This record gives sequence, C-alpha cells and structure tokens, in this order.
Amino acid sequence: MTMLYVVIACGLLSVLYAIWATRSVLAADQGNQRMQEIAGAIREGAQAYLTRQYTTIAIVGVVVFLIAWWLLTAAAAFGFLIGAVLSGAAGFIGMHVSVRANVRTAQAASSSLAAGLDIAFKSGAITGLLVAGLALLGVSVYFWALTGPMGYGATDRTVIDALVALGFGASLISIFARLGGGIFTKGADVGGDLVGKVEAGIPEDDPRNPATIADNVGDNVGDCAGMAADLFETYVVTVVATMVLASIFFTGATAVTLMLFPLVIGAACVVTSIIGTFFVKLGANNSIMGALYKGFWATAVLSVVALGLIVWLWLGGSTTFEAGGTSFTGASLFFCGIVGLVVTGLIIWITEYYTGVGFRPVRSIAQASVTGHGTNVIQGLAVSLEATALPAIVIIAGILVSYGLAGLFGIAIAVTTMLALAGMVVALDAFGPVTDNAGGIAEMADLPSEVRQTTDALDAVGNTTKAVTKGYAIGSAGLGALVLFAAYTEDLRFFAANAQPGSFFEGVSVDFALSNPYVVVGLLFGGLLPFLFGGLSMTAVGRAGSSIVQEVRRQFREKPGIMEGKEKPDYSRAVDMLTKAAIKEMIVPSLLPVLSPLVVFAVIYLIGGKNEALAAVGAMLLGVIVTGLFVAISMTAGGGAWDNAKKSFEDGFIDKDGTRHEKGSEAHKASVTGDTVGDPYKDTAGPAVNPMIKITNIIALLLLAVLAH
Amino acid sequence: MTMLYVVIACGLLSVLYAIWATRSVLAADQGNQRMQEIAGAIREGAQAYLTRQYTTIAIVGVVVFLIAWWLLTAAAAFGFLIGAVLSGAAGFIGMHVSVRANVRTAQAASSSLAAGLDIAFKSGAITGLLVAGLALLGVSVYFWALTGPMGYGATDRTVIDALVALGFGASLISIFARLGGGIFTKGADVGGDLVGKVEAGIPEDDPRNPATIADNVGDNVGDCAGMAADLFETYVVTVVATMVLASIFFTGATAVTLMLFPLVIGAACVVTSIIGTFFVKLGANNSIMGALYKGFWATAVLSVVALGLIVWLWLGGSTTFEAGGTSFTGASLFFCGIVGLVVTGLIIWITEYYTGVGFRPVRSIAQASVTGHGTNVIQGLAVSLEATALPAIVIIAGILVSYGLAGLFGIAIAVTTMLALAGMVVALDAFGPVTDNAGGIAEMADLPSEVRQTTDALDAVGNTTKAVTKGYAIGSAGLGALVLFAAYTEDLRFFAANAQPGSFFEGVSVDFALSNPYVVVGLLFGGLLPFLFGGLSMTAVGRAGSSIVQEVRRQFREKPGIMEGKEKPDYSRAVDMLTKAAIKEMIVPSLLPVLSPLVVFAVIYLIGGKNEALAAVGAMLLGVIVTGLFVAISMTAGGGAWDNAKKSFEDGFIDKDGTRHEKGSEAHKASVTGDTVGDPYKDTAGPAVNPMIKITNIIALLLLAVLAH
Repeated sequence: MTMLYVVIACGLLSVLYAIWATRSVLAADQGNQRMQEIAGAIREGAQAYLTRQYTTIAIVGVVVFLIAWWLLTAAAAFGFLIGAVLSGAAGFIGMHVSVRANVRTAQAASSSLAAGLDIAFKSGAITGLLVAGLALLGVSVYFWALTGPMGYGATDRTVIDALVALGFGASLISIFARLGGGIFTKGADVGGDLVGKVEAGIPEDDPRNPATIADNVGDNVGDCAGMAADLFETYVVTVVATMVLASIFFTGATAVTLMLFPLVIGAACVVTSIIGTFFVKLGANNSIMGALYKGFWATAVLSVVALGLIVWLWLGGSTTFEAGGTSFTGASLFFCGIVGLVVTGLIIWITEYYTGVGFRPVRSIAQASVTGHGTNVIQGLAVSLEATALPAIVIIAGILVSYGLAGLFGIAIAVTTMLALAGMVVALDAFGPVTDNAGGIAEMADLPSEVRQTTDALDAVGNTTKAVTKGYAIGSAGLGALVLFAAYTEDLRFFAANAQPGSFFEGVSVDFALSNPYVVVGLLFGGLLPFLFGGLSMTAVGRAGSSIVQEVRRQFREKPGIMEGKEKPDYSRAVDMLTKAAIKEMIVPSLLPVLSPLVVFAVIYLIGGKNEALAAVGAMLLGVIVTGLFVAISMTAGGGAWDNAKKSFEDGFIDKDGTRHEKGSEAHKASVTGDTVGDPYKDTAGPAVNPMIKITNIIALLLLAVLAH
Repeated sequence: MTMLYVVIACGLLSVLYAIWATRSVLAADQGNQRMQEIAGAIREGAQAYLTRQYTTIAIVGVVVFLIAWWLLTAAAAFGFLIGAVLSGAAGFIGMHVSVRANVRTAQAASSSLAAGLDIAFKSGAITGLLVAGLALLGVSVYFWALTGPMGYGATDRTVIDALVALGFGASLISIFARLGGGIFTKGADVGGDLVGKVEAGIPEDDPRNPATIADNVGDNVGDCAGMAADLFETYVVTVVATMVLASIFFTGATAVTLMLFPLVIGAACVVTSIIGTFFVKLGANNSIMGALYKGFWATAVLSVVALGLIVWLWLGGSTTFEAGGTSFTGASLFFCGIVGLVVTGLIIWITEYYTGVGFRPVRSIAQASVTGHGTNVIQGLAVSLEATALPAIVIIAGILVSYGLAGLFGIAIAVTTMLALAGMVVALDAFGPVTDNAGGIAEMADLPSEVRQTTDALDAVGNTTKAVTKGYAIGSAGLGALVLFAAYTEDLRFFAANAQPGSFFEGVSVDFALSNPYVVVGLLFGGLLPFLFGGLSMTAVGRAGSSIVQEVRRQFREKPGIMEGKEKPDYSRAVDMLTKAAIKEMIVPSLLPVLSPLVVFAVIYLIGGKNEALAAVGAMLLGVIVTGLFVAISMTAGGGAWDNAKKSFEDGFIDKDGTRHEKGSEAHKASVTGDTVGDPYKDTAGPAVNPMIKITNIIALLLLAVLAH
C-alpha cells in the first residue's frame, strides 16, 4: 500500500502545478480599461450562472446524499459527496481561471502569438490537471481512508459501494453541468448568430449584439466547466469500475495490487502530463496546432515509458494473473495500455479528418452550401452519420485486441490508460474557450485588427482541439461504459454466488443471452434513451435560442441607436434569461437516465420476476451504450464539420466550378444555418450523451448494491 | 394441406380484384390533350427509370441466383428468383396503374371530390392488394410445389432454405428499389424546390420549373414502386421467418399446421382487405381521411373476426401447443394476433400525432421557423429524435405481452397479423403519389383553381397516410426482424444439435450472453450499419439534388424565356440525370448490408473461431435492429413533421405572439429549408433502413444454411 502514498503525492503535485500556473496567469497584464470592463462582465455572468447551477444541483445532491445513506452506508453517502464536490470544484476553479485568462490572452496577443498561446494554454492546463489530479486524489484518498483509518478490507463491499457512489457523485454533477452549460452556451450562440450574423449582418462578437456577452459567458460555463465535469466523471467512473472488476476477479494481495494498478497508471500520467505541458512551445514554423501536439505527443510517449516502468518494476512483466478463466501476464497488461493509447491516437486522427477544414467531409458541406440552406444541412447530416463508422471500428478493434490480451480486465486497463491522458487532453480543450473569449474581447474592445488576427488563429485551433477532445471523450466514455457493464454482470454473479438464504439474490440466475426476449426489450429500451435525451436537449436549446432571438430583435427595435453604435445594448438581460432557461431546462432530461434503470427494473420485476428484471436492466445498459455511442459521435463530429464548413467561407471558399464565395455570400449564409444546427448537436446534446450513458450504468450498479444490502 | 389450396385461392382473388379495379380505373376519362401530354411525360419517365432500375438489379440478381444454386440448392435458387420477380412485378404493375390513374384522378376531381377519391384510392388498392396477394401466392404456391409435386417434407431443410431464399429475393429487390427510387424522387424534389420555390419563387409543380416532371416521376418510382417492394419484402420475410420457427419448434402434423397458420392469416386478411376497400366512401362530412379510415377500420375489425374463426374452427381454441419450453393454446395465439393489430393501431396513432398539422410537434417546428432556418432545423431534429420513444415503447410492450402469451412463436404470430393488414395499408399509401401527381397535372395543365383545391385536399391526406404507413412499415419491420433473429438463434441451435461428425456445426456451442465481448463487438458493428447506410444515402440525395439545382439554374440562365412562360423547359434532361444518378448511387449502400454479415463472420472467425464468429454475427443482427429502428423512425417521423410544418404556412401560420405568417414570408422560407432536409430523411434514408435491417438478417440465415450444406 505504500504505492497509494505515491499516488496521492502525484495527485497533490497536480494541485501544486495548478497553483503555480494560476499565479503565473494572473500575473500577466490585464490590458486597458475597456478590455477589463468587458472581461468583468463575462466573469460576473459566468460566476453568477455557475453559482446558481451548483446551488440547484446541491439541492438534488442533498436528497441523493440522504437516500444513499438510508439505502446503503454512510461510507457510500460520503463517497457520493466527495465525487460531487470535487467534480464541481474542478469545473469551478477551471472556469475561475479561464474568465481571468481570456483578457490576459487578448492583451498578450497584442505583443506576440507565442505570448497569447502561452497564457491560453496555461489556463487550459490548469483545468486539465485539476480534472485529472482531483479525480485521482478523490479516489485514492478515500480508498486510503476506507482501507486504512476506517479499517475495511480493500475488497470489502462497503469499500466497493463507497467508490461506486463516488463515481455516481461525479456523474450526477457532470450530467447537470454538461446539459445546463450546453443549453446556456448554445442558446446564446444560436440566438446571437441568427439575429446578428444572418439578419443584421454584423460579425460575431460585435459589441452591438446584445447577446454577445452571453455568448462569451457560455463558452466558459459550457466548454470549460461542462467539459471539465464530463471528463472528471469519465475518469473517476472508469478507474472505479476497473477497481471493482479487480476486486471481483482477484483475491488477496493480488486483488489489492490490481485495484491500485489503475490509480498508479493515473498517477504516472499526471506527472507525464505536467511534463508534457512544458513541451507546448511555438516552433519556428509558428504552427499553433504543432505546438499543442508537441505537448500531447510528449505526454503520450512518456506515458508509454512510465507504463513500462510500472509494469516491469512494480507489477512484474512476467507475473501471471488469473481472471475469469483467462490467464495473462503483466506484460499483457502493458500492451493493453498501449492499445488504449493507440485508440486515443486513432480517434483523434479520425475526428480531425471529419471536422478539419482541409478534408473531404468539410469541403463537401461547404460545396453543398453553394446550392442552398437545405443541401448544406442534408450534407452535414450525411457527414454526421458517416462519421460514426471509423471510430466505432477502432473501438471494436480495441475491444478485440485488449480482450485477446487479457480478457475483460484487459479492456478495463486499456480504457484506464486512455483516460490517464485526460489531464493533457482537457488542457487542449479548455484552451478553446479562453482563446474564443480573447477574440471576443479583442473585437468588442476595438483592438487593432492584428490582435484579432492573432486571437483568430488561436481560436481556429481551439475549434479543432474542442472537436478532437469530444471524439476522445465519447470514445473513452463508450469503452468506459463497457467496463461498467462488465462490472454489473460480474457484480451480479458475485452477489448471486454469495447470497444469504432469504436475501434478494438467493437463487438468482440471470440469462443474458440475446435470445431472451427480456434482453431484447432491455436493449430496445436502452437504445431509446439517447434518442429521447437528444430530442429533449435539442428542444431546450431551440427554445432558449428562440427566446434570445426575440430579445435581441426587441432591443434592436426599441433602441435603434444600438445598430448605429450610439446606444449600449442591455447585455445582462440575455445572460439572465439564459441562466433561468438553462437551469430550468436541464432538470427533466438529467433525471431521465437516473430514473430509467429503476423504472425498468420495477416494471419488469412486476411482469416477469427477479431474473427477468435483472436481465432487462443489464441489457438496457448495453442498449444505451450502443445507440449512445453513435448518437454522440454523429452529433459531435457533424457539428464540428458544419462549424468548419462555415469557417471555410470566412477566408473565401472556391467551389468545384472554381467560383469564389466570400463571407456574406448566399453560400456563406447557408453555411451559417448549418453551423447553427450543429451548435446544439456538438455542444449540448452530443456531449451530454456521455455522462448520460455512464449515469445509467452507475445507477444500475448502485441498484444491485441496494438490493444486496 | 387442403387449407393450402384455400390460401392459394385467396391469393388469386386479390389478383382478380386487381384486374377488375385496373379496368375500372382505365375506363375513366383521361381529360384534355394537355393533361394527357403531361401524364404521358410522367409515364414515360417512370417506365424508363423502372426498366433501367430493374435491368440493373437483374444483373446482380443473376449473379446471386447462380451463387445460391452453387452454394445451396436449385430449390433455393428458384426461391430467390420467385421472390425477386414477384417483388418486382408488384412494384411495376402498381406503378403502371398509378401513372395512368394520376391524370384520371385530376379529371375526375373536376367533377367531384368523391369521384377523385374513388379513382385515386382504387389505384392505391391495386398496388396494395397485389403486394399482399402476390406475396401470399409466391410463398404458398412454392411451398405447395416443394411439398407436393417435388415431394419434400414440410419441415425438410431444403424447403426451409428455399423459403428463406425467396425472402432474400424480395429483400434484395426491395433495398435497391427503395434506395434507387428514394434517391430519384428526393433528388428531384430537393433540387426542384431549392431553385423553384426558394430562388425563383414559383409554386410547386409550376410548369416553368424544369424539374417538375422529374418530381412527379419520382413520386411514382419512389413512393409507389419503392414502398410496394418494401412491404412485399417485409410481408414475405415475416411469413417465412414464422414458418421457419414453426418448423423448428414443432414436429409432425402440428408443425405443418403451424407452418400454414401464418399463410392462413394472410389469406383471410387479403379477403378482409378487399371487403375493406368497399367501405372507402366519402361521408356526408366530406372527410377524406374519415373515408380512408372507414376502410382501414372495417378491415381491422373483420380481420379480428376472421382470426377468431380461423383459431376456433380450424386450429382449435383450446388445443395446447408446446414450443421451446413454453406451452400455449390456440386462444393464446388469437390474442397474440390481437396484440399485432393493437400495435398497428397505436403506431398509426402516434405517427399521426408526430406528423399531423394540428399537434404540438409540428406546431413547434412551425413556430421555430419564425426565428429562422437554423431554429427550424434544430426543432425538426429534436422532434425526430423524440418521436422514437413512444413507438419503441409500444413495440416493447408488444414483445412483452405476446411473449407472455405464447413465447417466441407468439411474437411471430403478432407480427404476422400486423403485416396481414399490409394490403389495406399499402392501399392507403399508394393513394398518395396518385393524388400528388393529380395535383401536379392540374397545376401544369392550368385547370381551374377549384380542381387544384380538390386535388390539394386529396394530396394533404396522402401526405398523412404516407407518414403513417412508414411508421407501420418500420414498426413491423423491427418486429419482423426480431422474428428473423429468433430464426437465426433457433436455426443455429438446430444445426448444432443435428450436426454430422466432421461437419461445420460439430461441437458448436455459441454463447450469446451480453458478457461475451464478441457479442458486444457484434452489437456495435451492427449498430453502425444504419448510421453509415443513412450517411451514404443522404449524401447520394444531396449530390443528386445539387446536380438538379445546377441544371435548373442553367436552364433558367440559358433560356430566359422559361420564366416568362414563352419557352418550354427541357424536362427530360432532369429525368435522365436523375435516372443515371439514382442507379449509380444505389449500388454501394445496398451492398453494405449484404456483405457485412459475411465480412464480420470471416474476420471474427479468423480472430476468435467458429463460436465467436457465430456469436458476433448474431449480435450484429440485433445491433442493426436496435439502432436501425430508432434511426428509421426518427428520420421518417421528423421528415413528415417538417413537411407538414411547411404546409402550416400555406394556409397562413399564426405564431404564439399572434402574428400571421403567409406563404412567401421569411418564416415560410425557413420552413421550406426544413422540408428539404426532411425529404431524404423521410423518403430515402429512413425507409431504406427497413429492408436494410432485414437483408442483414436474411443473409445471416443463408450463411448458416450454406455452412450446414
């Protein structure tokens, strides 16, 4: 267990990095009075929103805390609390830095691209390392407390339940944060763009647009805090699920070692991620993407080395393990880790292909814009559907290879390693909203056009990294959910084998075969959840966006001075409206995945009985993964492609007949429609499917724990 | 076996009805010279396209015929041929009548609504009864030939394989016809609308639009011939799968009786459908939908009675059957039939809610159009996603109840009964393109506006019935595919139990449990097929539509006289372009579901082995059903809703603030964008998912047959 102290130390290191980097960001020049004013408005809006969002979640959280205590144990209830609080903290602190880094990035961009990149990336890295570090600390410290001072055995059910509850806490925050933040940011974006760009013909971030501050607030609460909560959750849940599997598959000292293994991988990768951040330096070619990738690849390569050291020096490369009829060596687990890293690399590469400006998919959407709004949307939808195929095949290959190497536990280790890079990946992502905001501030504060050009260059890269991170998040979430599902079936087997006479699990023998109609029913019911959830969240954004359109139109109508630049629009009105809308709209869809497993269990239990209900719930978990993976990938990739198809026109798009279409042309307007549609696709509905998939799975695990209790 | 002669007689009756009705339609007045000219152009275009489509399919068909003979038996090869030829015949004859009924409907509409309805519905009923009648005849006559003159036992594998091959023939035609027809019709529609309605501001079917004849041709080849092939296939495949299940579950005389059971249900429902057609009469309230529903409900109620008579007089209400561990009575099977009818009714009702003008979903899309193109599309996508939930729940309930009544065979009987109504349902659907064409002819031939009003009234109902039929087709296809999947698992069990030493199936024992990673891999791979297929078909329509846009723009530019009405556009150019595009574009996506099971089998066989490959293929079948069902429902419902949201504006839409938006307003233009997007959704990609799901399943069944051979 000394290794646990090392893990905790690595977690603390990431917090130290965050403190150091925060100081370094805050020390930078904040720019002139006007810039500070604007940044102040964004900051206030973002803080007001997040405070309200977390207050609302806290109410749900207290109820869940009490239920967990009542139905399970105090340890589970506190696990839930730790997961929830740390997830919230990672998002809140990340956003806190991000809304301060934006104006400093804008100011730094006036001196040089490298300076702008430095601040923006450092701000992203703070969020990234806090996500990975706090997740690691949460799990490892609580595991230490449970097994040390509180005296439970590592594989004791109380410990397992407490860890699962910790994952649940993270999940619950995550779905609310993703959805609420997503509705806010895209309501602002859709509404602002429709009136501003399309109707009034003013550029993005024009200070005359009353929705422009709300749009910048949205970047922070959605893309920064929302993403942070999402990856925090995926990280925690995957590590916990791997630990649960280890506790079931192995016994004695081996079980403890292999329960620590995912934590050790995570700890090593926190260190490699910190080192990686120092590789992000603008090269001679001034390629921003190149600079970021340097950091990413440095982390990846160092992680391979670290993984090798862990396996050969600590675990033993030739040590043989037995799990569920499969036997494998430490070296096999090393190769499973490599599979996880390769899957990460491939998914990033595929996402870049489907959403990058230079490739066929985005070009085809831009080309389709030439013939109108309708063909633009049709082609965008076509790309979004098509974009699911390759990532799914990569995931399938990953499952086959890692299963071949080390069985189910091999899959778990592959995903754990994939997620161990989360610190670096979130850093790349959280860089996006900072640069986006910096551009907005430059525009609104009327900085020289060179500054705007620099921030635009940073922002364009931010768009790509945001798309890439989403691909990564969904791929890892899909795989992570499979591990959770494995935990469900193994848990079930464990409970059935160890059932006391008279207890719920006595005589339980669940048939998970596809020929069991209850399994089919479960798959279909699970399959419908991502669709219904997507529908509800798209409606929410549509509604929020429409209300912003009407508000902006009203301000333009009632204050004609705004368009002439003589009157100041009322920015806070839009921020307020969106805050209320997002909080209100996030509740129902978030409860859907929480309640569904319970409802399915209850209904099928009444119709069929215990075994049938447990089979249907299990199948439902897989159903939700199967459709959820495709729905999420198609939405995020499609949205990214639409976004960049629109960007193609900003530099002038040359169609296949050689005609050049500029900004403001009919084709450009059609591309803006596609971008608008893509907004809630890629930033609200799509990413929120991630936590949705996992929360369904976690609830099912908790259901088993409650039934066994 | 005397019952088999009764079945054949009922099949012949439907052909007699078709002959009688065709004569009656052809005897009607064809209208003036101009109308006949236009109708002639549509007829020629449609015939030219279908001839070319079927010629292309014939080439593929010959190859498959030879392969089937080589790998299986001559009986299987001829079964394939019969299925393919009859499917083609139903589509071809239906279209043949439809392109003659259109002009007669337009002419009859000049005298009265009742007269117009009479011809249009009769034309639809011809297609409908040919679909049901020829399907029934194909299966029953071939079954008679195999078991009578050719002397095979009813449950002999040669017979089963031959019937499955017959289903495959129907499936193969169906996927090509659905996809080719869908690309043609929507390429024309999208292209024509974008330039005509949006850019040039001329109404639909305006003779100045060079794509207008192509649009009308498309209605016939897509909505009439395509839909006919689709439901022919679903009908045949479901009946065959039920027969396969009966042959495996039961033995001796019981097996023969229960193999005949689905045919007898089909036969009875052909008769009730014919009777039902005579109930379609315009009432005093002039409600067209009411008249059609009278026919539908008459058929449904008579079918309940007929089913009761069959069960109690022929099968025996209290006769007990044993299948796969479940025992049930004849009466249970009767109630399973009722479940099928109730599922049909509920799905029709839900589809009407999601696509009908008076309800919340369509109103919400119309309202969202007020704030622009983007919000229209967002809300339409939201509705399309949401619309999957209730049908899925109805299907789930149907599975649970019919399984509870009579096990897997009960589910099969529920779907068979559901599909036995196909004659009537296709009649309602095939009515659509006739009225759509009639409206086009009235517009182009410059008939008095009252005529156009009458045809518009008919057409509006046609839009609803088309949407409703699609819901029915997909619901039944989803359930039918589950029966196919059950046939796969039961077949596998049968082959493994009866394997000769040294044969492929010796020692095969497949683990279909969800905890088997090969099952997960299969589910994911199956899940990706509908997405990829949808993406490819949307791209095809987008491409075809864009080329039409450019062609129409070219004609307007080069012949400025067209817009002034002085010059005649070159209609045949657009028809030709679309014919080529549709034929070319239909090949690759159609081969996707054909080849996928084979590729998955081969790859997993190499990696894992026999059992793993069979498990992965089986899971793939279910994966394709799970995502396919949702993708298809969301696309068809969403498309229907967008279409009717646009129609709301044609009569003036009053938004929530009380403002009225007329045709030609900005809101109306936004709604046209949504309609354009919905076109390939609801008429190409969505419906083509049906045959896609089933062809994957059929190929898997044939694969087992080949491996066993």
